[in-house]
Amino acid sequence: MKNQTSAFHYTQFPGKAIAEKLIESALFYKNSPRYDSQKGQGKRLGCIFLNPSLRTRVSTQIAASNLGMESVVLNMDKEAWALEMKEGAVMNKTTVEHIKDAAGVLGSYFDFLAVRAFPTLTDQQSDMEDEVINKFIKHTGRSIISLESALRHPLQSLADHVTIREKSQKKKPKVVLTWAPHIKSIPHAVANSFAEWTLGMEYDLTITHPRGYELDSQFTQGATIEYDQSKALKDADFVYVKNWSSFEDYGKIHHTDPAWMLTESHLKEAPEAQVMHCLPVRRNLELSDEILDGPRALIQNQAANRVFAAQAVLSHLLDLQKP
Amino acid sequence: MKNQTSAFHYTQFPGKAIAEKLIESALFYKNSPRYDSQKGQGKRLGCIFLNPSLRTRVSTQIAASNLGMESVVLNMDKEAWALEMKEGAVMNKTTVEHIKDAAGVLGSYFDFLAVRAFPTLTDQQSDMEDEVINKFIKHTGRSIISLESALRHPLQSLADHVTIREKSQKKKPKVVLTWAPHIKSIPHAVANSFAEWTLGMEYDLTITHPRGYELDSQFTQGATIEYDQSKALKDADFVYVKNWSSFEDYGKIHHTDPAWMLTESHLKEAPEAQVMHCLPVRRNLELSDEILDGPRALIQNQAANRVFAAQAVLSHLLDLQKP
Amino acid sequence: MKNQTSAFHYTQFPGKAIAEKLIESALFYKNSPRYDSQKGQGKRLGCIFLNPSLRTRVSTQIAASNLGMESVVLNMDKEAWALEMKEGAVMNKTTVEHIKDAAGVLGSYFDFLAVRAFPTLTDQQSDMEDEVINKFIKHTGRSIISLESALRHPLQSLADHVTIREKSQKKKPKVVLTWAPHIKSIPHAVANSFAEWTLGMEYDLTITHPRGYELDSQFTQGATIEYDQSKALKDADFVYVKNWSSFEDYGKIHHTDPAWMLTESHLKEAPEAQVMHCLPVRRNLELSDEILDGPRALIQNQAANRVFAAQAVLSHLLDLQKP
Repeated sequence: MKNQTSAFHYTQFPGKAIAEKLIESALFYKNSPRYDSQKGQGKRLGCIFLNPSLRTRVSTQIAASNLGMESVVLNMDKEAWALEMKEGAVMNKTTVEHIKDAAGVLGSYFDFLAVRAFPTLTDQQSDMEDEVINKFIKHTGRSIISLESALRHPLQSLADHVTIREKSQKKKPKVVLTWAPHIKSIPHAVANSFAEWTLGMEYDLTITHPRGYELDSQFTQGATIEYDQSKALKDADFVYVKNWSSFEDYGKIHHTDPAWMLTESHLKEAPEAQVMHCLPVRRNLELSDEILDGPRALIQNQAANRVFAAQAVLSHLLDLQKP
Repeated sequence: MKNQTSAFHYTQFPGKAIAEKLIESALFYKNSPRYDSQKGQGKRLGCIFLNPSLRTRVSTQIAASNLGMESVVLNMDKEAWALEMKEGAVMNKTTVEHIKDAAGVLGSYFDFLAVRAFPTLTDQQSDMEDEVINKFIKHTGRSIISLESALRHPLQSLADHVTIREKSQKKKPKVVLTWAPHIKSIPHAVANSFAEWTLGMEYDLTITHPRGYELDSQFTQGATIEYDQSKALKDADFVYVKNWSSFEDYGKIHHTDPAWMLTESHLKEAPEAQVMHCLPVRRNLELSDEILDGPRALIQNQAANRVFAAQAVLSHLLDLQKP
Repeated sequence: MKNQTSAFHYTQFPGKAIAEKLIESALFYKNSPRYDSQKGQGKRLGCIFLNPSLRTRVSTQIAASNLGMESVVLNMDKEAWALEMKEGAVMNKTTVEHIKDAAGVLGSYFDFLAVRAFPTLTDQQSDMEDEVINKFIKHTGRSIISLESALRHPLQSLADHVTIREKSQKKKPKVVLTWAPHIKSIPHAVANSFAEWTLGMEYDLTITHPRGYELDSQFTQGATIEYDQSKALKDADFVYVKNWSSFEDYGKIHHTDPAWMLTESHLKEAPEAQVMHCLPVRRNLELSDEILDGPRALIQNQAANRVFAAQAVLSHLLDLQKP
């Protein structure tokens, strides 16, 4: 959690020590959701969505409520209007309000802001700068919690690692992140963030995908990149299935090869493998029904842990704000 | 309320004994809305809308609040994405998440789920199976409350029967359900449910409509079907006005004959008739202004009773969940 | 606040005495937001939006929460359906529910209704009658708070005058309302309301705009109308920047002359001028970055004061409702 304008933010992997603390805290809250039911009393969380959400919105609201915090949801795109991002823009087109004005106002209304802002997948520079979330950080003067930005989805990754902690028999499990087919151009945030966390936790990470689907190397340094999916999957303890669009040929779809869809037959040499996905999942396109409905699937566990991941982060931010 | 996966659901007429109890409970809460203001403390109600709502959403939220329950609204179609219903579907089209995954996750976040899902009016088989609400029941593991499904609108019907109880001079009133013209293809749920409840309460029910507008007979067995509207209306105590599309020629509009619109002149031989409608009503198409704004109208009473109907059902479900 | 159907409403300038009281109350709450945190307990505020909102919705919800009131937001246009306004309409077109029915129902669910309804900008008669908000008043039987109607935006104006009170060195400051260019047809409500309040507070008000942009004279009687912007701005203490469409040639755009955009160079003869805008602002079209990001700007203060303006009004309405 980096410190800027005297606020603390949760927008990326917070370092192994804090990550460990957050995992333990999430597991504690899973057991005693209302233990700190007064901790956030009088504090307000603004949940600002520039994109749709199911799990993220609901789990964050419940996490806040478990801590006695009030949350207010604003679907910026649907209930308000389009934000201008560009500094110095002459606003004579479709954007109605500059992010610096909106972020400033929201910062005066809330104690914390949680923000979802997907990448453009067309303007690589803006996406790589994580422009929207960073402009919120710059102009709001409040602690920002990422509900998925262009580059990362750190509450998802925390929930994923809470799940791995619950389900792992080993201290250093073999984790495989495998690309899956999809018909739409999908962001890199979940894959980036999961790689960043898994490496940050010092687990053994293998990433497998067709050539041309290499992720931004800033998130994968230290991982084994293996283009042969079957080699990659061998002896895996955890297999994270996820589609992403090309990073090199930015936002494009090169492959939709159904052979990359994970099925039971892919896991013959990984008998212990437990399978993860962040949801929403395209059944029988990314992952087969047999896996999703079978005993290997941790998908519902991950989703349930979203509440306690968010609760751990909010609780940590409340601690940091104490005088 | 049928029992499945160890949860109780409110999706249809619950039998006369429970219906009587719910009506009495609603009338009690109407008099003392906050009597049980702690009863639902710590419980969460997820209100999932696949279709628009005014009264249903607001009255359900207020009912929950009167019982100290927290409610969270999710407009699935607008704030999230389209759900896949088909088992085994290869999801390479427009649906983003399978109902079994979404229902499972929502079940892990909430204690109760209230779900609105209109019929397709094109896929009769899916509608007759009440597919969406039954898939929520199957996959969520929680008590489901129908906020109107393809087949029924049981919170509306409870509010309607609370209103009849308040306004009836007789133990066994003559109730007439009369079809009204409309320009759009309208679901059968309100009509089905009102018939099911009125017969279940052992009142005298006459249903009148043009030929070709027969409702699904599973809901009307025991009612008098009378194609002559004026004969049907004679000596009515309560006249429920409602449009529905054809069931036989599924979802189609055959008549828009303005002669079927209820006006004062239709009620010459029913001097005591009180007039009901579930709202929203198309004025001067389904029902005339003179009736809606006159002393016969119970429409605002029905709408006001929606709060206490929902409160009675939630209170009953809380009782059933007690250890 | 005029009295109708035994309820009090906040839809226009409430007279100087009450305005003074509301300004003092807002400043008090700004210092002690939770002072009256039990005052609204058990009361419910319905926030009904027929148009988009950011500041207004969030600040009103927070104001209610500061007073212990529950608020429920209904985005009528997005979550429900289109309302019919015309008395006696045969509703065989696109409107789904008559405002008289919806307002009646919402009045039975809530203690107070806050309503946003922009003008049509095409039907001048309807707009001049402030049709939507007045029909809510007529049919709801509850206190109505305007969240911006066709004619006025009185919570904005109260927040504006709280800001002037905070920032003014003088008892009777020179206030200038200056028209600014825009590319869209913009309502008159903010300008009308600011003029009405500023004159009502007995400040010195000059209004400047191109010929053809005269506001409805009912709001500007007593103001100096000056077509030469530079003359108008001379020695100004507060400059309120706002676009509006033509009133005479109703809803039309006649000028987009960039010379009318306020910049530092316009304020050479107004060295003390502080600059106001209600937001959202089109940067470098209505107002230059240099002013918005410079020391003259009161825009963020105005936005922050929206919470306390709403809180003062709700608190006043709670006082009026006491037995």
